Amino acid sequence: MFSTNSTSFLLFFTCFTSLANAQQKMLGFKDAARQAAIEQRFDKELSRTHIGETIKSLSAKPHHIGSENGAALAEDLVKRFRSYGWDAKIETYQVLFPTPKERVLEMTGPTTYKAVLKEPALKEDATSGQEGQLPTYNAWSADGDVEGSLVYVNFGLPEDYEYLARTGIDVKGKIVIAKYGRSWRGSKPKVAQEHGAIGCIIYSDPKEDGYYAGDVYPAGAFKNEFGVQRGSVMDIVIHPGDPLTPNVGATANAARIQREQAINLLKIPVLPISYHDAAPLLKALDGPVAPDDWKGALPFTYHIGGGNAKVHLKLSFNWDIKPCHNVIATLKGSEAPDQWVIRGNHHDAWVNGAADPVSGLAALLEEARAIGALYKQGIKPKRTLVYCAWDGEEPGLLGSTEWVEEHAAELKEKAVAYINSDNNGRGYFNASGSHALETLVNEVAKEIIDPQTQVNLLERKQANDVLKAGSVKQKKDRLAKLYMNIGAMGSGSDYSSFLQHLGIPSLDLGFGGEDVGGEYHSIYDSYDDYSRFKDPGFYYGETLSKAAGHTVLRLANAEVAPFDFRRLYETVNGYVNELVELTTSMREATLLENQLIAKNYYRIATDTAKHLAAPGSKSLVPYLDFSSLQNALANLDSVTSSLSFTASSANAPVNKGIYKAEQQLLNEAGLPSRSWYKHTLYAPGFYTGYGVKTIPGVREAIEQRRWTEAQQQIGVVAASINRLSAYLQQLK
Amino acid sequence: MFSTNSTSFLLFFTCFTSLANAQQKMLGFKDAARQAAIEQRFDKELSRTHIGETIKSLSAKPHHIGSENGAALAEDLVKRFRSYGWDAKIETYQVLFPTPKERVLEMTGPTTYKAVLKEPALKEDATSGQEGQLPTYNAWSADGDVEGSLVYVNFGLPEDYEYLARTGIDVKGKIVIAKYGRSWRGSKPKVAQEHGAIGCIIYSDPKEDGYYAGDVYPAGAFKNEFGVQRGSVMDIVIHPGDPLTPNVGATANAARIQREQAINLLKIPVLPISYHDAAPLLKALDGPVAPDDWKGALPFTYHIGGGNAKVHLKLSFNWDIKPCHNVIATLKGSEAPDQWVIRGNHHDAWVNGAADPVSGLAALLEEARAIGALYKQGIKPKRTLVYCAWDGEEPGLLGSTEWVEEHAAELKEKAVAYINSDNNGRGYFNASGSHALETLVNEVAKEIIDPQTQVNLLERKQANDVLKAGSVKQKKDRLAKLYMNIGAMGSGSDYSSFLQHLGIPSLDLGFGGEDVGGEYHSIYDSYDDYSRFKDPGFYYGETLSKAAGHTVLRLANAEVAPFDFRRLYETVNGYVNELVELTTSMREATLLENQLIAKNYYRIATDTAKHLAAPGSKSLVPYLDFSSLQNALANLDSVTSSLSFTASSANAPVNKGIYKAEQQLLNEAGLPSRSWYKHTLYAPGFYTGYGVKTIPGVREAIEQRRWTEAQQQIGVVAASINRLSAYLQQLK
Repeated sequence: MFSTNSTSFLLFFTCFTSLANAQQKMLGFKDAARQAAIEQRFDKELSRTHIGETIKSLSAKPHHIGSENGAALAEDLVKRFRSYGWDAKIETYQVLFPTPKERVLEMTGPTTYKAVLKEPALKEDATSGQEGQLPTYNAWSADGDVEGSLVYVNFGLPEDYEYLARTGIDVKGKIVIAKYGRSWRGSKPKVAQEHGAIGCIIYSDPKEDGYYAGDVYPAGAFKNEFGVQRGSVMDIVIHPGDPLTPNVGATANAARIQREQAINLLKIPVLPISYHDAAPLLKALDGPVAPDDWKGALPFTYHIGGGNAKVHLKLSFNWDIKPCHNVIATLKGSEAPDQWVIRGNHHDAWVNGAADPVSGLAALLEEARAIGALYKQGIKPKRTLVYCAWDGEEPGLLGSTEWVEEHAAELKEKAVAYINSDNNGRGYFNASGSHALETLVNEVAKEIIDPQTQVNLLERKQANDVLKAGSVKQKKDRLAKLYMNIGAMGSGSDYSSFLQHLGIPSLDLGFGGEDVGGEYHSIYDSYDDYSRFKDPGFYYGETLSKAAGHTVLRLANAEVAPFDFRRLYETVNGYVNELVELTTSMREATLLENQLIAKNYYRIATDTAKHLAAPGSKSLVPYLDFSSLQNALANLDSVTSSLSFTASSANAPVNKGIYKAEQQLLNEAGLPSRSWYKHTLYAPGFYTGYGVKTIPGVREAIEQRRWTEAQQQIGVVAASINRLSAYLQQLK
Repeated sequence: MFSTNSTSFLLFFTCFTSLANAQQKMLGFKDAARQAAIEQRFDKELSRTHIGETIKSLSAKPHHIGSENGAALAEDLVKRFRSYGWDAKIETYQVLFPTPKERVLEMTGPTTYKAVLKEPALKEDATSGQEGQLPTYNAWSADGDVEGSLVYVNFGLPEDYEYLARTGIDVKGKIVIAKYGRSWRGSKPKVAQEHGAIGCIIYSDPKEDGYYAGDVYPAGAFKNEFGVQRGSVMDIVIHPGDPLTPNVGATANAARIQREQAINLLKIPVLPISYHDAAPLLKALDGPVAPDDWKGALPFTYHIGGGNAKVHLKLSFNWDIKPCHNVIATLKGSEAPDQWVIRGNHHDAWVNGAADPVSGLAALLEEARAIGALYKQGIKPKRTLVYCAWDGEEPGLLGSTEWVEEHAAELKEKAVAYINSDNNGRGYFNASGSHALETLVNEVAKEIIDPQTQVNLLERKQANDVLKAGSVKQKKDRLAKLYMNIGAMGSGSDYSSFLQHLGIPSLDLGFGGEDVGGEYHSIYDSYDDYSRFKDPGFYYGETLSKAAGHTVLRLANAEVAPFDFRRLYETVNGYVNELVELTTSMREATLLENQLIAKNYYRIATDTAKHLAAPGSKSLVPYLDFSSLQNALANLDSVTSSLSFTASSANAPVNKGIYKAEQQLLNEAGLPSRSWYKHTLYAPGFYTGYGVKTIPGVREAIEQRRWTEAQQQIGVVAASINRLSAYLQQLK
């Protein structure tokens, strides 16, 4: 149990018994009232004013990886943690990080235009005119000097190229312009490169991210005509982290491959631009009119191009090795110091980063401050807390990945869970991650009050989901239970290596949905923007501190770490049902589609003036043998339905073993063609990037019609689920 | 049988027996081969070149009702019909028709702007600079001189005002600006007036009708920034036709009410404008940002307004009585001269009207020419053909309505069917109307070849429907049968009074879907536009002549007029099932919605920064007694399943009676609050205008939550269906 220093705690505790009684149960705890009292004391230590001051202070200057400001910020964080009573240190890696040397984009025909490539300072935004800003660019673009006909490829998704093929326009030897949205930015040049493009421009269309969405900055929150989304285009779905040191920590002396050998870097130049710069290029395009779902909000007719409009794109970069300063703070557990509850948020930003990452980081620091204050009062966590502020997240999860790779063996032994956050804003509670933690998330969320509406987080989320649901049936279903299903995690923040490389149970927590705007990765992600539009009053900063803090404290203090594998079983069972239905519906759709193609119905239906060829017919979908997976799930059903890891059953085998159960779901060989990703349930999609694919080995093989691989992967996943069942069985 | 003048016909006929054999059956005919041969000869007479010449000639000058050009065009039509061998005359009515005296629209605050209100002549459009064009206006706007705060009301639908109420913005005493689309234009000022607005502006947003849709005129077919859609805002859902002579023909000496007594005229001024003129007004609006489904394609953030932006709207009109010249051409039937097959298309246009109405009129004339040529060869219709070219359709179906009202008694006795067309273009075959004619339409369409794809009209339509269907199931269902369901008719063309006032079986036929553009009711609806974008080569003009001509010829020549009441039964049965499901789903949705309101879920879910109130709760939906209607349908099922009006059963009672069966579906009292509309199955929707409501008495009472009326109307419709069943039974 908790070590307490005095009767003062007992006295304090007594005051909260009524609350504890109201609270029926708390997963993993014998004494829910005591833990509830701790959480109440924790909450009292939090200050939204202080969170606001932290956001202002930490976003005061541009602080990207490798910058002097970034290094100073890491030092500042160490001081803060220490002042809270934590041990803290910097762990530095040496990583590749490209910055722009030359950036030229110009239209060379039929008229000329030279792109501005610069966001102007605004008097309404105090930090927007500072020195030290990284220019607008996509990190990990290749160096290149290319000129070619320009082709508009919509969002640059694989299916956009399928449509393009029907128009007869080929991007080979041409430069594509894709808009931000629908897929992760890095997928756009990757798919373009696969199709033979020699360069890629990515722009923010005002439809998704500008005046169509709402008033533009500084009048409103949305992207003005000059705003540009910076961002990494490293192919993180192959692996994140330093491209030169895959699988190992990028310590100063680590063995490094040559940049040319890196398997997650592009071969073509890529540049992000504003809609001010995109408009003249898009307006100059000829060729067919873009179909309806390709159209944006610029005031002219969108054409696909591929003809006379030509652009010249010249980009070169400084390919430097830079120090990557992770800040690691520790508070030693009183009972199980070798069990670590890890909490992290990155500290590097593309520019000032008030929202991304500082808003999440400020909440994390506030938690650390409150926990430190309790610690001084003798309220100590049973398990060790490790609070991390990662560097180099923006270019490709560099800091967290290198740290995880370096400490992999120790983490697999000690890490109970990893709780991540990143940018945070106003709105609804979002949680995604390991489904064995879903019950914990629900228990935590049910007891935290939304600051705008004074109902608990579950109810606020339910209200929103119900109103947004499409049908009466969907609304009723969502209304039936005050419960939230947590999402599955793809990529895009620092949980990736913990969960997907090591199998450490992970969560990503945050608030959002009412904080929409266009500041993301621009110079306008500033304190001025944040305090006006993202979380005025910093109420949701404090609420994130509560949600993440309670989650951390329960994981730290529970007699039996609060995992619920029954929920994991139910979720995975749902995924498998989806896969079975996916093959059925693909089979049916393919048969029909091939029939329509054979009947010439595309030619017959389509306006001849559109010169749109029929799509090609597709391979028929075989019946796959899902039985090994279904039997594995039946077994997991049986095992998890009789699991009884209640707090009273706490014993060393359970306590030492339960948090490692998720590691059973790893497959050491990794996913086909991307071995770094070892979790058989969750991975970022090969073509979706940040977007998750669940049971990715099977799902992507089916989606991409690789039937032999799909069948083989069914066996791989079944084996991993069987390992989990056997593992849980022996813990009983 | 047909009277033929010689053996030449028999010789000719022999050549076509193989075709006739291929054709399994033809509803109402003993000898399908003979009719098929006639249709083949008819087709040979058609010339698409001639149709193109007709379109060019008849659209050479602006020719609205009351204009000298319009009168001359009517004379020209008489000459044409006579030259084809038809009797032809002009029947003139004296109708009210307003034309603009003064039109002023200006923004008076916070900045100033004076609207252009003028479409420029274009060198690419030969007729666009002519004298005699009607200015841009909405006929039947009230005179008015108003100034007020401007409110953007999206499409101006009732539900848009429900949303507006949630924002706290009231249009009372203000001027609204609504965009064209979703509802008929006349509904927009009507709903605005119901909510207390003092003026209404209607504009064409580039999203629906401008550069967002495609390249703009003259580069492409879509609306350029100055294009304006003229059009009537008479409340035709109350009644169409001359507002001063409801229910009676507007002959020179007819009794007239005062204009102030007219029940289908607005009390507020209305003006249509271009997006060039709308942009400064919309850009000046303040207040809340418009929700997503309100946003258009102008390059700024749409706001709802209701604040500082003010406009001044001053309109006055010449309220003149004008002659309305219908052209009526007759070809006497050889066997049943007192049975009339009526075919019509209007001849008046807002300006030049190459598409609307000349494209349909040219096809009609070509049919008349071909039928006249056959007649001279001795191939005469058994029933009398009446071919009509209506005047005054544009301001409110004036010519056809006055003619139908004047000749009502004779028409109810003699009219077998009315076949309408209007503007025609490239694409898919569309047919709507009386469902007892659905089998005929299918039989006709199956034997006509689409000129672009060389498959029959049913197959082309099926191919398009299948590709556009949302789900694999919907695609498969549509693919299962080579058949088209015809639509139900609302309003918007000259069939209205035939079908909905008199119960004369009617059809509206045409082609479209690939002829999209922005010329509708503008000066750019010209021959230059039409021949480039709507039907280059006039292939679909010829195809419409075939489709309408074959339909007319079968109705004229069948031993038993080709009605299939089984299809009517099946369709109406579907409508009744829809109504039952509608009450069930409304009941369920209302219960849930009221529950969500009671739970405060709108407040809880909604961003507090949006200041959006919850909607009001709604009256619960009672269980209605549909049994009288269901029993009536069971009876109609029984009667129609044993109907056998085959050609061989032809006898005088059947032949004289069958075409009057649809009149049994009239209810003499008419619809609640709009007694002119007497058909119990089909009417234009009270708030949709052109858009149909089927079983309107019941459906609109349910939709508008008038439960007592809904119950009463169920009885009215049941009685009409029982009359039909009894009538069909006695014909057996």
